[in-house]
Amino acid sequence: MQKPSNPQGTRDFGPEVMRKRNLILDTIRGVFKKYAFEPLQTPALENLSMLTGKYGDEGDKLLYKIRSNREISHEIDEEKAQTIKDLFPDRWIPGESKLGLRYDLTVPFARFVVQHRNEISFPFRRYQIQPVWRADRPQKGRFREFTQCDADCIGSTSLIHEADLIHIYNEAFTSLNLSSTVVKINHRKFLEAMVDELSLDFPVAQFTSTLDKLDKIGKDGVVNELINAGIDEAKCLELFELIINSDLNKAILDQLAISFNQNVLAMEAIKDLKELVSYLGDSPLNIQLKLDLSLARGLDYYTGCIFEAIIPGSGIGSVSGGGRYDNLTDIFGLKDVSGVGISFGVDRLYEILESQKLWPNSKSFNQSILICHFNRETQVYGADIARKMRNKELSVLVYPDNKRINKQLDFANNKGFTHAIVIGQDEMESSFLTLKNLITGDQNKMSVDDCIAHLKS
Amino acid sequence: MQKPSNPQGTRDFGPEVMRKRNLILDTIRGVFKKYAFEPLQTPALENLSMLTGKYGDEGDKLLYKIRSNREISHEIDEEKAQTIKDLFPDRWIPGESKLGLRYDLTVPFARFVVQHRNEISFPFRRYQIQPVWRADRPQKGRFREFTQCDADCIGSTSLIHEADLIHIYNEAFTSLNLSSTVVKINHRKFLEAMVDELSLDFPVAQFTSTLDKLDKIGKDGVVNELINAGIDEAKCLELFELIINSDLNKAILDQLAISFNQNVLAMEAIKDLKELVSYLGDSPLNIQLKLDLSLARGLDYYTGCIFEAIIPGSGIGSVSGGGRYDNLTDIFGLKDVSGVGISFGVDRLYEILESQKLWPNSKSFNQSILICHFNRETQVYGADIARKMRNKELSVLVYPDNKRINKQLDFANNKGFTHAIVIGQDEMESSFLTLKNLITGDQNKMSVDDCIAHLKS
Repeated sequence: MQKPSNPQGTRDFGPEVMRKRNLILDTIRGVFKKYAFEPLQTPALENLSMLTGKYGDEGDKLLYKIRSNREISHEIDEEKAQTIKDLFPDRWIPGESKLGLRYDLTVPFARFVVQHRNEISFPFRRYQIQPVWRADRPQKGRFREFTQCDADCIGSTSLIHEADLIHIYNEAFTSLNLSSTVVKINHRKFLEAMVDELSLDFPVAQFTSTLDKLDKIGKDGVVNELINAGIDEAKCLELFELIINSDLNKAILDQLAISFNQNVLAMEAIKDLKELVSYLGDSPLNIQLKLDLSLARGLDYYTGCIFEAIIPGSGIGSVSGGGRYDNLTDIFGLKDVSGVGISFGVDRLYEILESQKLWPNSKSFNQSILICHFNRETQVYGADIARKMRNKELSVLVYPDNKRINKQLDFANNKGFTHAIVIGQDEMESSFLTLKNLITGDQNKMSVDDCIAHLKS
Repeated sequence: MQKPSNPQGTRDFGPEVMRKRNLILDTIRGVFKKYAFEPLQTPALENLSMLTGKYGDEGDKLLYKIRSNREISHEIDEEKAQTIKDLFPDRWIPGESKLGLRYDLTVPFARFVVQHRNEISFPFRRYQIQPVWRADRPQKGRFREFTQCDADCIGSTSLIHEADLIHIYNEAFTSLNLSSTVVKINHRKFLEAMVDELSLDFPVAQFTSTLDKLDKIGKDGVVNELINAGIDEAKCLELFELIINSDLNKAILDQLAISFNQNVLAMEAIKDLKELVSYLGDSPLNIQLKLDLSLARGLDYYTGCIFEAIIPGSGIGSVSGGGRYDNLTDIFGLKDVSGVGISFGVDRLYEILESQKLWPNSKSFNQSILICHFNRETQVYGADIARKMRNKELSVLVYPDNKRINKQLDFANNKGFTHAIVIGQDEMESSFLTLKNLITGDQNKMSVDDCIAHLKS
């Protein structure tokens, strides 16, 4: 008999983990909805031609390709098939794969937008929370099947979207007990302005990819790399004078206009960020919003604002990133559609909440009551109590089998039930219940209605 | 440029469809939770060896098999690979596929239970709502990627689970405006008792598969098929006297004990159903619960109670089915674990709610407000109003761009916003708002706080 197992790099999410994951996803989904993002789901299966060539050579290698018997039978000529069967008994007959598994949510979103562009009213704000697959080498914290959680606004250049995304960060991280989060913001044109100001004659992309390593290799590392690329030390010093890292507000933006000496690109960035600040409003955020001119987020993909969220002291890189792009739908032939979006790293958020023990009290996300009993008569009475409680939307289980009370209470504790009620002859006759709080150990005798009211409060 | 498309047999779910699908799934999930079913998710990718041989020859043919470049490179000897490349340029190199896509939620659940049997406290009640994949011929109402929605209780023989599942049917269908639903119930042992009573000398499975066609081919069709299988007409008439179809209650069970002349198997079925009735309690159900002795649900898989839910007049077969089984985990080497479960057909429920226009008022599942404006000044004021509304958990969008008011209202109607607020100079100065209900056309002038209170009510 084969030993049951799940594939390497994949995970089973049992009840306890599911409840915690749902807490994260429901929180983020709830905030997306408040900001009128609309739900979208695309299939896991995509035509392979939609995926290949979209993620670079390295990405292409990580695509999962799919075959079914149905496809094979129509494609192969008999004689060749026989040769293959002789060479490789018990193996697949080769055929062109036409299907692949979704690698991210961005390319399917672009496909959806272009495919349905005549039905969509733009601007289109969508959120999408679905698994993606990558044939990566499994390692700690890296999986072959994992959930992405994206929100994008497409078809509008207004900076009000960027302001909404910052408010989404503020609300989501606050709700998740992570108000210490720092959201860094930068603008692509500041990066271009630096290259410009220092008269560097190499591509912005190369510059940003070096600058992006600041967190990892430090200032000295970045300087070394720039010197090796042919920039002299004086210019590097100049550069680091430009790279400010400060709260985002109007005053710092005015100061930057002076540092950059009215550089045209920098002035465009400043104009955008001033507009963003005006949309943010006056009420203070719980999270910190930092203008960080070294932020580049690797890709040469963003064309406007760039975001990154980190949780200081977590020992984990960013938990979210995003920015404005102008070329998402280019790959499917629809040009000049501007958008802006962010993506939350669900596994990283989970890891931080777990290691820093920041989960909200389990009662708030898993209140549930086990009704225990001594025999069939008290069990049937318990089933009646359960119905009354479920009518008030409480989560209740009547212990199904005939076991000793301490076995039933062990079960309640193992499963993470928050409350237990033991029904005996006394309870049946008095119509009072004893409610035991399994977290605090408190015990209270009360009527059924009071018990329900207590649990609902 | 390739034309963007999704694969045959798959679907993109845009916002409107997603909201409706979520209404179904959230309703069912909410009911599962009230009955203390625990959430579980298993990966889409399973080791192919876990899937093959579990669904019969026909099922095996419908499995999607998966390859990645990573796997190929380690497996093939160079010389053979070259032969393949010569024969099939631009095609896959054959290799043994080790991964497949989940075909249903039952086998992964069985795998999970056996793999984690030492960590699970039994009885284990889980619900699981995830997509599955089948390389079926796409046709109307049949998809290659679709969502299954299952709940099972495993590791307990108590009939209280069956009673809970019936209450789940009652609550879920009532919440979905489908209280006309008929839930049919039967017991495997009644089917065996019929074979017994009539001294039929062919297998129960063959008998049940014929009987199962009653809805499709009618009584005459079933009789013909039984006669062809060698049963004489008199016995067929006797059979149809046994097949009652009545409300499930104690009286009908007593009557059955007489019809079956105290047949041992029938008496066991009656004992189970009496126990079930005792757990159901006295409060009447909204749905109809029918004992239907012709119900078999195809499979020779169920060992106790069998369920099927149909919606009369929908023109669609069952929208849910299930029953008790004793052999789920046998396939992975764990014997004698009894369970009972049901599965909802999400696509069929969607189709019925859509065709019978039974969706709840859109307000209750998509209340959302668009704030319209004339210029940047009124837009920034609108952003402030939006923040106040979002603080009260309302879903609000400030129209992001600078367009004419009628364009903004068109957008609101296209997107299905339920309300619009137009902010002009008057509104900014008076701090009153005009709230327009886009469904009824009603318009009301009120303060911001009253407006929020009105929308929350």
